[in-house]
Formats: sequence, structure tokens, C-alpha cells
Amino acid sequence: MVKDTKKAEASLESLQRIFTVPEAPNSTLGSIEQAISQNLNRFLQDHIAATDSSLSDIEQDFSDPCIPEQPTFVSDHTEFLLDKVVAQSVHTSSPRFIGHMTSALPYFLMPLSKIMIGLNQNTVKIETSKAFTPLERQVLGMLHNLIYGCSKDFYQSCMHSAHHSLGAFCSGGTIANITALWVARNSALKASHGFKGVAEEGIFRAMKHYGYEDLAILVSERGHYSLKKAADVLGIGRESLIAIPTDEHNRICLDKLQDKIDDLKARNIKPFALVGVAGTTETGNIDPLEAMADIAEHEGIHFHVDAAWGGASLMSSNQRPKLRGIERADSVTIDAHKQLYVPMGAGMVIFKDPTLVSAIEHHADYILRKGSKDLGSHTLEGSRSGMAMLLFASLNIIGRQGYELLIDQSVDKARYFAELIQAQSDFELITEPELCLLTYRFVPELVQNALKKANQEEFEQLHALLNDLTIFIQKRQREAGNTFVSRTTLKPEKFARRATSVFRVVLANPLTTHDILQEVLDEHRDIAAQSTIALPQLNALADRILSTPKR
Amino acid sequence: MVKDTKKAEASLESLQRIFTVPEAPNSTLGSIEQAISQNLNRFLQDHIAATDSSLSDIEQDFSDPCIPEQPTFVSDHTEFLLDKVVAQSVHTSSPRFIGHMTSALPYFLMPLSKIMIGLNQNTVKIETSKAFTPLERQVLGMLHNLIYGCSKDFYQSCMHSAHHSLGAFCSGGTIANITALWVARNSALKASHGFKGVAEEGIFRAMKHYGYEDLAILVSERGHYSLKKAADVLGIGRESLIAIPTDEHNRICLDKLQDKIDDLKARNIKPFALVGVAGTTETGNIDPLEAMADIAEHEGIHFHVDAAWGGASLMSSNQRPKLRGIERADSVTIDAHKQLYVPMGAGMVIFKDPTLVSAIEHHADYILRKGSKDLGSHTLEGSRSGMAMLLFASLNIIGRQGYELLIDQSVDKARYFAELIQAQSDFELITEPELCLLTYRFVPELVQNALKKANQEEFEQLHALLNDLTIFIQKRQREAGNTFVSRTTLKPEKFARRATSVFRVVLANPLTTHDILQEVLDEHRDIAAQSTIALPQLNALADRILSTPKR
Repeated sequence: MVKDTKKAEASLESLQRIFTVPEAPNSTLGSIEQAISQNLNRFLQDHIAATDSSLSDIEQDFSDPCIPEQPTFVSDHTEFLLDKVVAQSVHTSSPRFIGHMTSALPYFLMPLSKIMIGLNQNTVKIETSKAFTPLERQVLGMLHNLIYGCSKDFYQSCMHSAHHSLGAFCSGGTIANITALWVARNSALKASHGFKGVAEEGIFRAMKHYGYEDLAILVSERGHYSLKKAADVLGIGRESLIAIPTDEHNRICLDKLQDKIDDLKARNIKPFALVGVAGTTETGNIDPLEAMADIAEHEGIHFHVDAAWGGASLMSSNQRPKLRGIERADSVTIDAHKQLYVPMGAGMVIFKDPTLVSAIEHHADYILRKGSKDLGSHTLEGSRSGMAMLLFASLNIIGRQGYELLIDQSVDKARYFAELIQAQSDFELITEPELCLLTYRFVPELVQNALKKANQEEFEQLHALLNDLTIFIQKRQREAGNTFVSRTTLKPEKFARRATSVFRVVLANPLTTHDILQEVLDEHRDIAAQSTIALPQLNALADRILSTPKR
Repeated sequence: MVKDTKKAEASLESLQRIFTVPEAPNSTLGSIEQAISQNLNRFLQDHIAATDSSLSDIEQDFSDPCIPEQPTFVSDHTEFLLDKVVAQSVHTSSPRFIGHMTSALPYFLMPLSKIMIGLNQNTVKIETSKAFTPLERQVLGMLHNLIYGCSKDFYQSCMHSAHHSLGAFCSGGTIANITALWVARNSALKASHGFKGVAEEGIFRAMKHYGYEDLAILVSERGHYSLKKAADVLGIGRESLIAIPTDEHNRICLDKLQDKIDDLKARNIKPFALVGVAGTTETGNIDPLEAMADIAEHEGIHFHVDAAWGGASLMSSNQRPKLRGIERADSVTIDAHKQLYVPMGAGMVIFKDPTLVSAIEHHADYILRKGSKDLGSHTLEGSRSGMAMLLFASLNIIGRQGYELLIDQSVDKARYFAELIQAQSDFELITEPELCLLTYRFVPELVQNALKKANQEEFEQLHALLNDLTIFIQKRQREAGNTFVSRTTLKPEKFARRATSVFRVVLANPLTTHDILQEVLDEHRDIAAQSTIALPQLNALADRILSTPKR
């Protein structure tokens, strides 16, 4: 299909050609590749957050449900992709895109990812991956070592053993969390006299065998939504994911956790997993993992730490103390595609005890035969790519000290931004950064004063209008595409747990400068001034409150 | 870290540099990329199946559990990757690698995959993907259209609707199958008077509410192992995945299926899903989907078709009739990384009814807000890559007619190979190809004659030795790395359901020639001759049997 003539034609010969390595260095495909690289470089250098094309406009370009009958030239289709896909994508790598955990990539990953795509290994089985299997096992060993720091002998005997697994590489934190809770569930409802285990017999028979009234997973109310998904998928039910209240720092309240466990046990409900959050998605805070480990140990509950985002901070000896206790977790989720800076699709769950995954072991005749070292016998996914290779390369090329610098600069930057926000008269910091994530909102000075004087009804009105204003600003800013912050809804203690819309930023991109942060605030302010509903209403209400004589 | 000096040093400045697009076209990274491309091209042109390095040797290169403290130069690490990873990988794209469903990739995907990696979009949410969201929705629409062929109006109203989902893109067939059965389970145990549904309340309470004794998923005994995994994860239990016997063509026995359903119902067990297999992993056969659809419809059971491998054949109007009835399935699994020739990590589940996925809908405040078009609210996975883009490109560049040619040539080649095997005096075809997959074994003529004359005990002995010989040949051949076929264990009717080791080939690679197929057979024969245990024992036993006077 790579031809100079204008009509592509599907013949077996031309189809065989597309599977053949182009011989000439100046082949058509070579120049297409160069065009893509140049276009991508321009895109990646363009430090905006997104273009302002609307979603419904873009949908027009992707509206035909028919697979084209005839082939298209690679060059023609590449043009389409550059025009309609690349140009209309989000600049997740832009230093002005500070709204989500998807950040910039080190540029060396572009050439290296060629190896992954080109080799197209399938890590489910050694027969389709070979070197990628020991490589992935080493990466899991490195992460295990980072978390648990076991002895050299331990890794020597477990890392490449057919009977052990230090963890599972997977597409992301959601699958990692599901895998961890699957292991926890199957271990809690394991085979015992007259019962073959929940994996064989299912939950209904397991419950009858063990005589429990119900099961429960415990996590703070800031737990990631994937845990609810896990509770649903695993047949536990979302209601059995028990949300424990958090303190003013968004950390689980230990006394309420213990009370809940006591209450569940009194009602014959089995809490089989306790999840500590190391970096909540919305506020970036870390649970008191050490104290949670004590409780889990005492109660005999599987202790899982969801460090999908915060786990990367273990790379920094300066940040590591914040996660103290993680080394006592039975399992830990870490996403390498967050602050370990590798492309999307690199999640991991690490198990302290390398025999724990036997609870979810699977075999089949044509694949994953017993005693084999095939990675697929311990993973939720089946066929998988060699993504571990990109993490392997990043760990080697950046090194632990390099990661330490990257992590530390992100935390420093968040601290700087928090101070910058507090120095403004018309902004309010909502949550302090513990790592590099913080939340805040825009509150005009007049409104701040009015809030102090308002009665409860007025306070509610102002609060609701501020929520509207925050949402208005975030949407407009996203659409304008100059900078991007995300938003979420929190229920802060200081606002009597009222639902509060806030801006949320994650400052992982090493190229985000202090000037850009100032610009982000300026843009919030400028957009607020364009609000024709929320802001005038806020001002009018504030005026009324402030002009009313003291009650 | 890309420097000419010999010592890499981690400083914030040098770290910022790795996130910066290299300006000069002849940058260090540029020449590294060129070196990788050249090396990869050499590797991909090298038409062997694998090198002969042993796994334990390779493990030595991946044995250190410590993350290196210091950074490494990209160039140095690239050298390591080319030496130790690329050179020791499996040539899944080699025309001589005909053992698994992982096959060659069209070469145009190498440059195009740069777009996916470089943009690093996260399709969980529009805010981190923009054009990739409508693109993925269109791809799902195209596949839906391929299977179900609904009206233009249908696609116009559903494809980009926030309240509908035509399917879910995921990492692979396993996640696709789990997703389909998750939807089926939640639909069967949905909310009803006094019960909030299994998603909220879990299986134990669901069973008590509905008063069932147990649940069941029905599939032929040739169903993929991921279905067992699904039954475990979903809390149904592996025992409740009921394997229905197959006929001599490895297709589900309809009468036995109906008997089992009647039996389950009589015992108050709820069969909530029936799975048809469109391309069994071991023998490549297709269940009688039309008749299964009748049964599922009559019984009110969710009908899922696992067409992870065979689904690609819908592209060919010549093969499509073999899958008749698939258009009546409630859900269908298709892996694009199998015979749609895109890189690993491109699974899909397609739902006939675009409201069905509401059974697994999830929302969260900071992401996937209600009414949004975010793809993440209907997927098992959370953060995901823009892999759909590579399928989109392949569908456009190859076109339906191009795929038809690719699929048809693979089926023709399998038919040719089957005839070639049957023309040999010392080979035995075990399963005929229905698509491009077949199984066979090596049986010396002498042994064939002895088998005809053997008493039952002798037959057992010969059969066991033939199994040993098959395993010996396959392992040796894999290690030698010149060609590669896989092996599995079947229980063919014609051998009174004795466990039978067989060679298994998948002829999807368009570059596999008739000569290569002849070579594969020749190599089997050569390796067999080297057997110092199984072959001499077989010959001795055959001699004894044949020299014994007729009993």
C-alpha cells in the first residue's frame, strides 16, 4: 500500500509487501516516519494544553461506522492522522497541562518504544517472549526490593523461580488493585475441610461454608474509584467497600477504622482486606500506613496499599519517610505510567510473600503448563505486551538518584505553588501538598469578607455560587487550551463537609516553571471576570451581606 | 543523559533535558534511533524463530534486584537492550514462527505507533485524550457494524452518545471475556424489589434474594482458559463454568448442552451465560452459533461469543458464513492483536445492545462524571493507552478487501498444509483446519502399522510413547530456533478420548511459504531421528507387535 501511484489496490502481493521490512533507507515509509517525527516534535514543543476545537466538531471526523472497503495509502492516512488525531489531541506532556497524573515522557522512550512495538512479544508465555520474561521478572524484583528491601538470597531464590511470583505487571492501577483484592479474597475464603475454596466453588458456597453474614473491604473515603469497581467485579458488592471517614488531612481516622472493624466482627461480617492509600487521587495525601499495618496484623486482615500514584516517591530518600509502613503491606499497587514517567499501560501489583499469588494460579494445556515460568499463570490479563521493557530502560537510564531529583523537584514545586496561592488575596488553598498534588479555588476578596459575616443560609448560597464559578472557570480554561487544571469535589472539614468544587493540580512535569504557575492563576482570574452569571451574583450577594448592619 | 562525555550525572538540568524535544535532526538521540531501527530491521529480516540461548543463561543477565543508583547513558543502555533483549527475543513475526496467534505486523505500524507513544493519551477520560475518544468510539462502531450491521440511524444515535456504549476496548481477550461475563452476571442478578442488584450488594445477598442454589456459565470443553479465570474473579467459582462435551469436530454438542440446561434448572441453578467459541484456541473450530443463539434466546440466557481469534474472519465474505449466528450474540470478544494484525494489547468486547453496559457503569467526582462521554465509565480497566488508533489506521490502510485477502490466504495455506501432512506417510493430521489453525503429529509408518494390530495395552504404550516423542520434537525444535510450532494436549474421539500430544500451527503470517511448511515437516522428522529414548522404544515395541503372529 506504500506506493507512489495514486490508486491503492489490494492484491496479495502488495499485502505481503506491507509485512516486509523496507530495504531502502530512503523508502516511502522512511519519509513518512520522518514526517511523523517532525510533526510530533512540533506538537510536543507547542506548549499549549490543547487546541480549542469542540468535541462535537471532532466527532464529525469520526462518524462513519463502515470499515472502508478499499485500502488507503499509508501516506494519505498519515496525513489524516496528523490533521485529525495529533492536532486534536491533548498535550499531556505540556508543562502547562498540570491537571492530571499523565505527564511528560523522557524523550529517549520514543526510539526505545520501537523495540517494544517492533518485537511484538507476548509476555503471557516464554514461547512468545523469551528475554522479555526474565526482564519483566527483574523489574518486578526491583520494585519489590524498592518497597520491601529483602535479602539478596531472597531475590536470588524467588525472582526467576517457577513457583514464586513477586508481583504482576498489568495495564494499570485498576487491574493491579483488582488483582490484589482477588488474591486477598481467595486467601480469606481458601479451601478448608469439605470446601475447595472460593476460586473453585464461588462466593455463595464459600459464605455458607465459613458461616459469615457478609464480607467487607475497608478503605478511607478518599479511596480510588477502582476499588468500588473491584468490589463489584469480585462479587463482594460496592456496599461492602466500607468508606472510613478521614481527618482534616484526608487521612483515614484510625479510631473510626477500629470501631468499624469491631462493629463488623460483632455482626459476623468478615473484613478481609484493608486498603491504605499512598497518595489519594483527589488530594494527594498518604494514610498512616504504619498504624494501619498494626491494625491489619492484629486483626489478621490482608493489608493492601494503593500507591498507584505515590509509590514512585519511594525513589526519593527525602520523600520515602512519608510512606513509612508500606514495607509491611501484603500487596502494593504502583503505576509506572504516573510518576515513574513511562507511557500509558504500565501498572504493577507487588506481593510481599511470593507464594501469595498461588491463590489465583491458573493453568492450561496449551499454555501456562504447570512448573513453567510463564508469567501468564499469575496475572488477571492473558496476552500482554512487553511494556516492562520501557520501565526497565527508564530505571536504568534515569537511575534511582535521577528519580529522586525528579520527585523532589515536583514536591518543591507544589510547595512553591501552595505558597503562591496563599500569597494571593483572591485565592484559597483547600488542601496542602503532601507530595506534588494540591487543590485550591478562586474566591474574590469581597466574597471572602462576606463569607465571614454571612448567616448559614447566605453562606450556603455563597458556597453554591463559588462552586458554580469554579466549574465555569475550569471548563472555560480547558476549552481555551492555554493551560489546564482539573477539578474535583471535596467535602472539607472546614466547610462543615459541604460539597466543594476545587481546582486540582499535579506538578509532576519537570518543565513546568514558576512563571507558568503564575500564568495559571492569572488565567483563572481573567476567566472569572468573564463570568456573566456566577460572579455578578456572588458580588451582588456579597455586597448585600456586607452592607447589612451586623446582626 | 544523552551526552558525549563518558560519565552520566543526575542533575535537575540534565533531567529536564531528557524531557525536552531534541532540536537538532542529527542529535545523539537521532543516531540512537537510527541504530535501533537498523538493528530491528536486521532482526525482523532474520527469518529464524529464535536464537538457541537457554532461559537460564538469559536469566543471568536479568538477575540484579537493585535499581541502579546512578543514571546510564541512553546509548550504553540501548546497546544492552539490543544485545540482551532484542537478540534474545522470539521472532514472533518470522514466517517460520507458526506456533502461536502472535504473528507479523504490517511494517507501517512502526512509524504510526510513534504517534501513540509520543502523544501518551489516556483514554479513560476526554480531558486526557480528546480526539482519541471519538476515534475509539468509531473503531468500536466499525466492529459493531461488522458483527451486527445495524442501521445508519442506529450508529448515528449511539456511536458518540454519552448514554450508550457499543463496547469496550481493552488490553486483550481475557479482559474482554471477563467484561462480557461481568455484564451478564450483573444483568442476571439485577436490582429488583427490595434488592439493589449484585453490583451493590454482592453475590451472597443476590443469591439469597433470588433464591437460586447456584449460578452457571456454559461453554464447550474447548473454551479458552480465560473463562475459568473469569468464573473465579467474578465470584462464580471455576466449578460453575460447566464444560459441555464436543463432537468429533470440537464443536459443542447441542443435545448435551440442552440436557445440561434442563438439569441445572431442575436443580434450581441459574445458567446466566452461554459462551459460543468462534475459533477454539487449540483446534480453531467454530461452535454452531446459530443453534446456540436459539437455545440462549429460548432460555433467556446471555449469549456471548468468544471470537478473540476467529472474529477477524468476519472481514472475509468467504469465511463469514462459518460464523453464522454471531450477529445474534449479546456480546462478542475480538482481539485485534490476533488476525487483525495490530500490536499486542488490543482486545475488544462489543455489545449488541448499547445500553447493556449500564450494568457495570461507574462514576467518580474527579473523573467520569455522570453524563460525560468518558470511555472509562464502562471499562474494567481505568487509565488506558490510545491503542485503538493503531487498529483505526490498519482498518483504513488495509481496508476490508485487504483483510479479506489476508484471511483467505491464511485459510488456503492451512488447507494446503493439511493436504501436505496427509500426503506424508509418517505424519497424521489430528484436526482439520476450519480457519488457519490445525493440529497433527509425527507417527513413523512402522508405528502406524503396529497401532492397527496392537491390543489395548500395546496401544496405550504406543500412544504414550508417541506423546513423549511429540513433546521431545517440539521442545528440541523450539530450542534449535529454526522453526517453531506449538503443542497442546487433545482428547480426540478417534483415540477414545485418550490424552494426545499434538503439534499446533497457526498460519496467519502472509510470508509463510509452502517451502517453509515442507521444511517444518522435514525438521520434525530429523529431530525425531535424534530421539534416543522415545523413538527407539517405539520402534522396538512396533517391531514386537508386528512380529507377533495374529492373535
